[in-house]
Amino acid sequence: MESQQWLTETERKFMLSKINPSTPPTVDELMQWRKAISQVASTSTPQESLVNLGIRLAALHNNGKVSDQLVQAKPTLQKIESTLGVISREAGYNFQSNRNTITASQATQQNFSTDELAKILDGQQADIIRKVKAIISDPEFQYVSPGDLDIYRARVLQWCKHLAGQGFGAMAYPKEFGGGGDMAAYFTIMETLSYHDLSLVIKFGVQFGLWGMSVYFLGTEKHHAKYMKDIGTLELPGCFAMTETNHGSNVKGIETTATYNHSSKTFKIHTPNEYARKEYIGNAALHGQMATVFAKLIIDEKDYGVSAFVVPLRDKKGKVWPGVKIKDCGRKMGLNGVDNGVIYFDHVEIPKENMLDRFSSVNDEGKFESPIASDNRRFFTMLGTLVGGRIGIPRSGNAASKSGLTIAIRYGDQRRQFGPEGGSEVPILNYRTHQRRLMPLLANTYALHFSLQYLTNRFLNRKEEEMQEIEALAAGLKSFATWNTTATLQTCRECCGGKGYLSENRIEVLKNDTDVYMTFEGDNTVLMQLVAKSRLTEFRQEFGNMNVFTILNYITDQAKTTITELNPIIVRNTDEAHLLDSGFQLDAFKYRERDILTSAAKRIKRHIDNGMDSFDAFNVCQHHLVEVAHAYIERIILEQFVLQVERTKDAGCKTVLKKLCDLFALSQIEKNKGWYLEAGYMEGVKTKAIRKLVNQLCWDVRQDAVPLTDAFNIPDQCLSAPIAVGR
Amino acid sequence: MESQQWLTETERKFMLSKINPSTPPTVDELMQWRKAISQVASTSTPQESLVNLGIRLAALHNNGKVSDQLVQAKPTLQKIESTLGVISREAGYNFQSNRNTITASQATQQNFSTDELAKILDGQQADIIRKVKAIISDPEFQYVSPGDLDIYRARVLQWCKHLAGQGFGAMAYPKEFGGGGDMAAYFTIMETLSYHDLSLVIKFGVQFGLWGMSVYFLGTEKHHAKYMKDIGTLELPGCFAMTETNHGSNVKGIETTATYNHSSKTFKIHTPNEYARKEYIGNAALHGQMATVFAKLIIDEKDYGVSAFVVPLRDKKGKVWPGVKIKDCGRKMGLNGVDNGVIYFDHVEIPKENMLDRFSSVNDEGKFESPIASDNRRFFTMLGTLVGGRIGIPRSGNAASKSGLTIAIRYGDQRRQFGPEGGSEVPILNYRTHQRRLMPLLANTYALHFSLQYLTNRFLNRKEEEMQEIEALAAGLKSFATWNTTATLQTCRECCGGKGYLSENRIEVLKNDTDVYMTFEGDNTVLMQLVAKSRLTEFRQEFGNMNVFTILNYITDQAKTTITELNPIIVRNTDEAHLLDSGFQLDAFKYRERDILTSAAKRIKRHIDNGMDSFDAFNVCQHHLVEVAHAYIERIILEQFVLQVERTKDAGCKTVLKKLCDLFALSQIEKNKGWYLEAGYMEGVKTKAIRKLVNQLCWDVRQDAVPLTDAFNIPDQCLSAPIAVGR
Repeated sequence: MESQQWLTETERKFMLSKINPSTPPTVDELMQWRKAISQVASTSTPQESLVNLGIRLAALHNNGKVSDQLVQAKPTLQKIESTLGVISREAGYNFQSNRNTITASQATQQNFSTDELAKILDGQQADIIRKVKAIISDPEFQYVSPGDLDIYRARVLQWCKHLAGQGFGAMAYPKEFGGGGDMAAYFTIMETLSYHDLSLVIKFGVQFGLWGMSVYFLGTEKHHAKYMKDIGTLELPGCFAMTETNHGSNVKGIETTATYNHSSKTFKIHTPNEYARKEYIGNAALHGQMATVFAKLIIDEKDYGVSAFVVPLRDKKGKVWPGVKIKDCGRKMGLNGVDNGVIYFDHVEIPKENMLDRFSSVNDEGKFESPIASDNRRFFTMLGTLVGGRIGIPRSGNAASKSGLTIAIRYGDQRRQFGPEGGSEVPILNYRTHQRRLMPLLANTYALHFSLQYLTNRFLNRKEEEMQEIEALAAGLKSFATWNTTATLQTCRECCGGKGYLSENRIEVLKNDTDVYMTFEGDNTVLMQLVAKSRLTEFRQEFGNMNVFTILNYITDQAKTTITELNPIIVRNTDEAHLLDSGFQLDAFKYRERDILTSAAKRIKRHIDNGMDSFDAFNVCQHHLVEVAHAYIERIILEQFVLQVERTKDAGCKTVLKKLCDLFALSQIEKNKGWYLEAGYMEGVKTKAIRKLVNQLCWDVRQDAVPLTDAFNIPDQCLSAPIAVGR
Repeated sequence: MESQQWLTETERKFMLSKINPSTPPTVDELMQWRKAISQVASTSTPQESLVNLGIRLAALHNNGKVSDQLVQAKPTLQKIESTLGVISREAGYNFQSNRNTITASQATQQNFSTDELAKILDGQQADIIRKVKAIISDPEFQYVSPGDLDIYRARVLQWCKHLAGQGFGAMAYPKEFGGGGDMAAYFTIMETLSYHDLSLVIKFGVQFGLWGMSVYFLGTEKHHAKYMKDIGTLELPGCFAMTETNHGSNVKGIETTATYNHSSKTFKIHTPNEYARKEYIGNAALHGQMATVFAKLIIDEKDYGVSAFVVPLRDKKGKVWPGVKIKDCGRKMGLNGVDNGVIYFDHVEIPKENMLDRFSSVNDEGKFESPIASDNRRFFTMLGTLVGGRIGIPRSGNAASKSGLTIAIRYGDQRRQFGPEGGSEVPILNYRTHQRRLMPLLANTYALHFSLQYLTNRFLNRKEEEMQEIEALAAGLKSFATWNTTATLQTCRECCGGKGYLSENRIEVLKNDTDVYMTFEGDNTVLMQLVAKSRLTEFRQEFGNMNVFTILNYITDQAKTTITELNPIIVRNTDEAHLLDSGFQLDAFKYRERDILTSAAKRIKRHIDNGMDSFDAFNVCQHHLVEVAHAYIERIILEQFVLQVERTKDAGCKTVLKKLCDLFALSQIEKNKGWYLEAGYMEGVKTKAIRKLVNQLCWDVRQDAVPLTDAFNIPDQCLSAPIAVGR
């Protein structure tokens, strides 16, 4: 300041006084200055220099004329400004109004027909979906608070009865038992109900799926004739009592006994110790009158392995059956509308015909009979008939993801927070981190929708010899999907901040209700190990046996396969066209799948060859095995998504689905980039290019995000969240 | 079989009949065979060949003698066995009892004194910790169900009163107002209470922290004299009313007004529109009688920015004050013992002295006065005084992690599931995936314990010029710690399966109560961006301003710094001694921190240089910026953990802490391995060696895991979970 000759002495003194920390400008002075600057800056462009701004500002006090003094000052001021660099150009923003930024101007677009996309999602099930949506939008289905368990559970039962009354409960059962004979529709009902209260879904699934289907698939004609009709109408509420306190994942080890007495032609069902009690049994605490009970069959003191029996729990009036003791599991993380209970049996006697005797029976001479001699194989064959649960649960979970994403994306599109100085606040969905958090999950949810449809179709059209593969597929997709549901709903909660924490906005309820889906129907981590072992043995052993070790032939075959030599140009190829080519994406997924599988097999074999116990060898490689399963399932999901894009005819839908498919593929590769780099399948330039492309896809998909959730077509009455349906 | 000359015709026919699928062996035959095999196999070793087993089996039926027939058969059988390879050796296991495996025999060890470790954790606060633990173990503090909100909230208030009665509420306040004058103890109380009900912690924190500290730090002597004593005894329950519906993260934009009237010497507090209502305010729905309300000060129609005011909400009898309207936020994901509410003000008049006038005031002439002229700087200085909340919350969250880990680890140590054929079931904590899920989280929790102590000490001994750094540190650690709490409790829930889903085992409650910690005191993602900007500007601007852009000088400086050339031997060094060297670990963390920071700065500058609006440039790099903050915080945490290991004298504790520190360091590097590989800082051989070492450390730490949770010394009454304290 001392060196600026164009300043007068008074001006210099004034300015020096104002930059002295002990005599700062007053608040009112600052306000005046700011007002004057704003007046000038509002007519400037972002390119205008600070010097020009300053000169125009000074001219305000000189009737708009530029004084000689300022002309003289300009060169030195320009030198100062150039030294400050970028700062000076940015400074003006603080005083401009109507600052336009790319970030602020991004907005929802309508690039495709949501009706067309909804048709693609619903497929041939559109009719039943529409019917179920109409019912759950009814005022009768208004949500209840989970505060009072009695009220909540009673309401959920009432809803179930209402659905049963419309024929939805018996949908999968043969027509001769009053059913609809339509298994596909049953899965659709479970999925569509999941837009509503998840306790309803589970109560419905326990009654018509677990209880009904176990009688249907494990029982024979006499059981069907006796029970199916009443189960389908909910005249006969029942349970599926397999899990015991000490045996959850390892159900083959259950200890409940069913001891046969040939003279009375009866079984005695008994809980031999405290921890052999049946636990977490849905419908048990209050409403169940009967249960399919899994127990070890004992004849003449010989153990014939696990069979299933129909056992009474309560009479018609709800009085607990003699010898049965039931405790309430009490409050849970979620699903509080379901009355889970603990059941003890004290030598409860049931007639011989109560044995569900499709896979094992006691003949007229009191001898055991079974078409399957091996206990193991029989047990897993029985479980295999119940694989439907591993289809219903992930479809329900994915529907919950759709609800959560609809709420969080609609909120993110409306909610504004922060913004450029001088501009208005920006929808939070325009922020890159917010897009990064939600868009890949939206892509996952679409991807899973199609692969779960694929799984359902495989199951509905199954042949006996495909069962092992379908079971692995179901176990893997169930795990992947329910992990994804939990991750999605957790992220949706966080993305909605305090609003996401309020129960009225339902994300927390969806999260807490579906959290146990990761445990239901088999713990995900345990299931993924089964999937991996099944891959290792190429489905040669019964699915579900944890002690598979006959992998030798497989390993020998694999060891011969040479991994295709890596092309040095491709590992560095960063062309967008290449990265967006489904062929490249599928190759990458398949390479990973095969390489991980082979290396896991080799590792296990090496350990065993070195004298390690096979149980230990599998344990050492357990983490690796879970990766084997992941790589397999991810490949399946991508394959199905790519097929869906190919078969989509509507141009707008095809474009947006291709974007989602790319986002799914590339965000999975990005997630696994450490592996691809380690394996030398990609170099750093390529993984960086993929990251950049994921960012770009998130930015692009954000513009379609609201219509993409509209295509889920979830009734407002079900979403219910004020942040998504109000305002 | 046709070619085996040693078989008689009868034998051949018999065997061929048994492998014909249409005439399989009967169940009873199979049982007999299995029994016979078991009899022989039980005396075999794992090394015994299948041929030998077979020969011994055959000898059973020949009075123990080996027939000539078998001698003849041996060579061909051996040939068959050798072709089968590994399978045959493993087959015997199915029939052995007492099969010993490394996996099954792993067990909890006592390698160090838990008392010594507890002393290290508690440090100088051991006394107050003991006192608080005694209180929360009292039968009076038995948990209540969250089912009935009225009962729950009343109980939480009662607990708070009890604590206040013991002088814990006023612990941080000066002695002249009945306080303890001990801020360190206050933080310790918050942390220790977190082993109990988290609603209690938050209710306690709202009253004595947010409400009391805001009066203390933003007010002056007259307010201290008038309010502090009653706040500390809970005679005067109050609230902290900053957040508005439309302004949560961007609190600088709040719209509530405080309009000064000089003639009456009063302010009118007013909610100008529906979405300017105060929301989520703790203590507001039921109990709060007063609130610190943040509002824009208007004098003579000029806006002087945000100040704070003490505003009445209810009279002593609980009747809502005229002009105030309060709504209950209702049920939430968690913390249902806290009565959060929404507050509207309709021109509520308060006297001039109710302005908390430490940083801004209205003088006797009715003019605005402030020692800080800039609105922005004044606002963030006010917020800066409240940084304590960003210390209390992560400490509370980390305590919740300790509870969750104690429950899940004790359960995993006891719970058995699956096992080798013929052996007993194995504790699930012996499985590698289970260890992989829990052990790194245990390491994180220990790591955070020490860095949160460091943060607390920095805050307690702060100098004015360190405030920017401490604020960044608090924001970053708060985010990292609360994300870690959510991840930890979610994993603990899943690791406990169905038991984890039951409310009685408390993991779900801990998870749901602490979930909002990621939102409280600033959304984590937003905070991490502030941390990054603060790193970019080297704390030159006020912390908390989202629109920082004066990064030029920093970038210029950094661009000159050459990243140390990478040593080609070190990038491939896989020696265990090297990987376990804290020097290597710290170098890797620091390299990542500096490289990410520099590349982010360059990217932003490049975009701005290319004419992009700075707001857009920051948005494009937002994801990168969050990484900047992560890398910074991770480096701080490792640094503090390494220092802690160094200063630990007790040999047993030093060894186990070093293991945890290594696990923290290497699992973080593994998490970021994609980055290290991309950057060329490590090659695949090295990241693979790190993965292997992480597996090994998980295996090792598992043996210390139960004692490591014992050292947290959480009262059984607080843990309460039957799966952790019963059985």
